[in-house]
Parts: sequence; C-alpha cells; structure tokens
Amino acid sequence: MAVYTDITEIDLKNFLAEYDVGELTSYKGIAEGVENSNFLLHTTKDPLILTLYEKRVEKSDLPFFLGLMQHLADRGLNCPLPLPRRDGALLGELSTRPAALISFLEGMWLRKPEAKHCREVGKALAAMHLAGEGFEIKRPNALSLEGWKVLWEKSADRADEVEKGLQDEISSELAYLAAHWPKDLPDGVIHADLFQDNVFFLGDELSGLIDFYFACNDLLAYDVSICLNAWCFEQDGAYNVTKGMALLEGYRSVRPLSDAELAALPVLSRGSALRFFLTRLYDWLTTPAGALVVKKDPLEYLKKLRFHRGIASVAEYGLSA
Amino acid sequence: MAVYTDITEIDLKNFLAEYDVGELTSYKGIAEGVENSNFLLHTTKDPLILTLYEKRVEKSDLPFFLGLMQHLADRGLNCPLPLPRRDGALLGELSTRPAALISFLEGMWLRKPEAKHCREVGKALAAMHLAGEGFEIKRPNALSLEGWKVLWEKSADRADEVEKGLQDEISSELAYLAAHWPKDLPDGVIHADLFQDNVFFLGDELSGLIDFYFACNDLLAYDVSICLNAWCFEQDGAYNVTKGMALLEGYRSVRPLSDAELAALPVLSRGSALRFFLTRLYDWLTTPAGALVVKKDPLEYLKKLRFHRGIASVAEYGLSA
Repeated sequence: MAVYTDITEIDLKNFLAEYDVGELTSYKGIAEGVENSNFLLHTTKDPLILTLYEKRVEKSDLPFFLGLMQHLADRGLNCPLPLPRRDGALLGELSTRPAALISFLEGMWLRKPEAKHCREVGKALAAMHLAGEGFEIKRPNALSLEGWKVLWEKSADRADEVEKGLQDEISSELAYLAAHWPKDLPDGVIHADLFQDNVFFLGDELSGLIDFYFACNDLLAYDVSICLNAWCFEQDGAYNVTKGMALLEGYRSVRPLSDAELAALPVLSRGSALRFFLTRLYDWLTTPAGALVVKKDPLEYLKKLRFHRGIASVAEYGLSA
Repeated sequence: MAVYTDITEIDLKNFLAEYDVGELTSYKGIAEGVENSNFLLHTTKDPLILTLYEKRVEKSDLPFFLGLMQHLADRGLNCPLPLPRRDGALLGELSTRPAALISFLEGMWLRKPEAKHCREVGKALAAMHLAGEGFEIKRPNALSLEGWKVLWEKSADRADEVEKGLQDEISSELAYLAAHWPKDLPDGVIHADLFQDNVFFLGDELSGLIDFYFACNDLLAYDVSICLNAWCFEQDGAYNVTKGMALLEGYRSVRPLSDAELAALPVLSRGSALRFFLTRLYDWLTTPAGALVVKKDPLEYLKKLRFHRGIASVAEYGLSA
C-alpha cells in the first residue's frame, strides 16, 4: 500500500493537458505498489493509472522500465502501456516527481492461487522472456550476488537476533552461491518480482502482468526460480509439487528449458530465496517498531532457502521427464 | 488513507453474488476515508465503492448512515447510494466486517477551493438539510458539549505540552460554551464533517457529497459553522471573508437562516472549532511517534477558535444585510 504524494486537481489538469486522454472525471490514490504513488484515474475515455516515482526509484532507470513496458506491449504481452505525451515523451513531471500515465489493466490478483493459475503464470513468464528479446536498453540486476553481499554486510551483525546461528548459515550460503552460480545460461530481460500481486486474472484467465520496476537483465531461469518461490509454497511453508509441476510445464510449453537450465534450478532457487530473505531481513531490522508498514517475515524465505538446499534431484520440483 | 482489511477474490465473488451488479473486473483498495476500508470496483456495468466498516464505527449506527444516504439520494441529493442485496438488505458481511456496496460518484475533491466553490458547498449543505427532513432514524451527536467534556478529560492533563496555558484556556471555553450554547434553533440531520475531501466537483460544478459517517441530529446552523471552519480559512490561518460570504449566501439561497441562527454563528463556530481541536489534540497526544499516520495539527483549530472568540458582529463573517 502506498500513496506517498498527494496531487492537486490543478497540477493534475496541467499534467494531463500534455496528453490526449479525454476529460478527467475522478482520481483516487490506490493501495498498489510499494515504491511509488499510484492513482486510478477515470476519464471520459478509458481508465488510467498515474504513477509518481518516489525517491526509491532511480530516475535514470525510468527509460528502461517505461521502454520495456512499451516494447513488451508492442510484442503482444498484456502489460500496462505507458502513454506518450503530445511531444512523444513517456515521462512527465507532477508534484516535483517524475510521473507517467499508463493504461489500466482490468483483472484481479489472486490471494489464493491454485495449480491451474501457476500454469498460466509459467506461460506468461516465458512469453515475457520471449517478448523481451531485442529490447535495447540494458539494466544489470542490482540484487544478484554482489548486491546480496552489500545487503548482508548491513544486517549480518544483528542476524542472530532473528534466529540463532543465522550469521554463520547465511555467510556460508553466500560463499556457496558465489562459487556455484551458473554463468553460461541464456539471459535476457527478467521481471524479477513476479509475485501474486503482480499478475492479474479475469476468472481463471491471466489478463496481464504489472509492476516492472525490478525488471533487469539476468538469467531467464533465475526468473523461473523466483516464481517457484513466490507461487509454489503453501502458507505452512510446504512446497506444493503440483503447483511446481504446473508452473514449469506452463513455462516449457512456451519456452523450452535446456538441461543446463533445469540442472541449475536448485542453486538459482537458493539464490532467489536468499534475495528476498535479505531484503526482508534488512527491512525487519531497520523498520521502527511503531510503523504501520507490514513487516514481511524474513524467516519465510529462510525456510524456502533450506528446502532448496535439500533438493537432490530437480525431479523433486515436479519436473516430468 | 485507509485500507485496513484485505479481501480475497473468492470472498468478494461470494459477497457480490448477493447483488445484481454485473461481473467484477477489478478491485483496488483506495486511499479514502479514515475510519473504514474502501475499495473501488470495476464491473461489466458501473464502477462501485465497497466499504468494509472497521472497529471505530458502531455497527448499530450503520442503519442510520446507510438509510440516510438512501433517503437523501431518493430526494435528489447527489450522494452515494447504497445498493440493496437481492434480499433487500443494505448491509452484508465480508472478511468478518459489516460491508456495503455503494454507487460510485464521479468527481474530485478540491485541494485549493475558491470562493465560487464555497458558494456551491453552501448550497449543497442547505439542500442536504432540506432533503434530510422526514428521515425517521435518529442519532444524537456524540461530539457535542457532553462528548467534548469526555474528550477533554482524556487530554487536559497534557494539554500544556502542546501550548502553555492551554489547560486553563480550554477549560474556560468549555464552561462558556456550556453556559451559552443555543437550544431553540432549528435542528435536523447534519453532515457534521463536510471538509474538502467530502465534496466532489466536476470542473466548477459540485457533483456530490460523500462520507456520512459522522452524520447525526443537531442544530442545522452548527453544520454551517463546521463548513465556515473547514472552507473559509487560508493556510496561514486567516479568515477569508470572501469565501465566508459566498458560503453563507449560497446556503441562504436554498435555505434561509433565521436571525437567531445568524446571531448564534460565533458561539456555534467556537464549538465546532473546539470539536476538531479536541479530536486532533487527542490523536496528537496518543498516536505513537513512529506511526505513519499524518497527525493533523490541533493548533490550526485553536487559532480558528480564538478568531471566533473575537467576533463582535456576525457581519465580520461576510454577511450582507
């Protein structure tokens, strides 16, 4: 939930005058996204999303994010499409923030997804990986091996406050991943944050992907491992092999995974579990006690990390031969 | 801003099955209202507001609030209309909260209203007072003289933390108001919270009033004094007589104010300034320092209170003869 910046109707009217979008009839701050302020606009034409980019987003990354959405939408992926201003620019300014106007995607994110939805997510992720080909701007993944080290250095000293022995365990894990991280797998543009709230459905049909603000260039199979972590575990922490099978089969029906990619899934999944563990741990240790932000439990991802560490064969993820 | 309760798409679908509202295509938590959780729903028919009533709202008051909106809308006031379920009830349950589905009102609230808007607010307030006639359910104003005393007792000890001498000043004020509060003025249903964010405009035209969750039975002129306080002061604390004149003229063009009502405006305005001062003071003193809630400055209303105390003749509000 995030509306950090309010906007006046006068500033908004001036901002919208640069676009061809009909008359504004309503705007509401919505509880969506955690990095930016988002408003749902009604106009005499189509509903729209207005995003104000807050300080946590690097302004220099915006051409990558907005260009990527345009690139993917042009190639038929259902994702929000940034609208160009009359002067062609995708980015304007509103209330001293960089701001973009983006098409509104109907659909709802699933609080309780089932295996059939995981299959659709797999398919859409693969479709996104294919649609991302040819996108010219590059953005390295700031939250990979190097970034994890930096994050860990900020939290390591206090990690044992969360669970005894954590400092040693995570230090060893980082060393293991640094030594075993795959290098020669297919790479491309990845979503890097394809959690439930970023996938919309209408009924059982996937209607679109949103929130490309962690997207970057990295190993495509790493994105698959993020989805395994985000979609295929139950609330009690158990891996759901039916969901895993559905997600992987859905993905492979659109883009085959090579033997090398499949073999790397456990180490990639350890990495992506560690990535979310580390950001959550950092937030956990630094968010003040009284704050009204929901602190996500880092231990959820520690459990997932340990699960992947115990994987002997990738068949355990639900891979059929 | 308030979304306290999240809802699953499955619960929402079951809830909506009791209504005749088309197929749901999207729902977003919106940053509107401070007492309840609000969602903006898109359907294959009209957009809707879904309100989940949180603990601060007394469940026994809901028939008053929902019935009032229906009563006012039936009499032609532009305000949200609660939709009946198939069984005729205006209230259902969702995520263990009482919940209502309410028509969506297009329009925007004004962050920077001008005198011409104050005139429209005056007219709409008077129209609401007339439309409220004949509404059968009664709800006494919990935030009048008696309620202020209770609130004050919770804050008096610490009031001097906010400003030296405040404890004496407010105690005297309460005694003055108890002794001079008018008793024989026309009463009826009042909105009691008609601040900027509860009045929608399309262009310069007022498109509707929302948020009736403080509505109650009280003196109609007291509601006028709330609007004087909410709409006719500038950010620097100065009373804007042009706005005051516009608001009062707008009101009187729809419902005349008697001489007794006009003469009572200063004392009523002291009361309504004190009412908002006291709730803000209480929140100021009890909200934890780290919390992400915007604490509204109680001193803003202390200044307004002092302004009204200095009023020698109601002509100072901008009243023409």
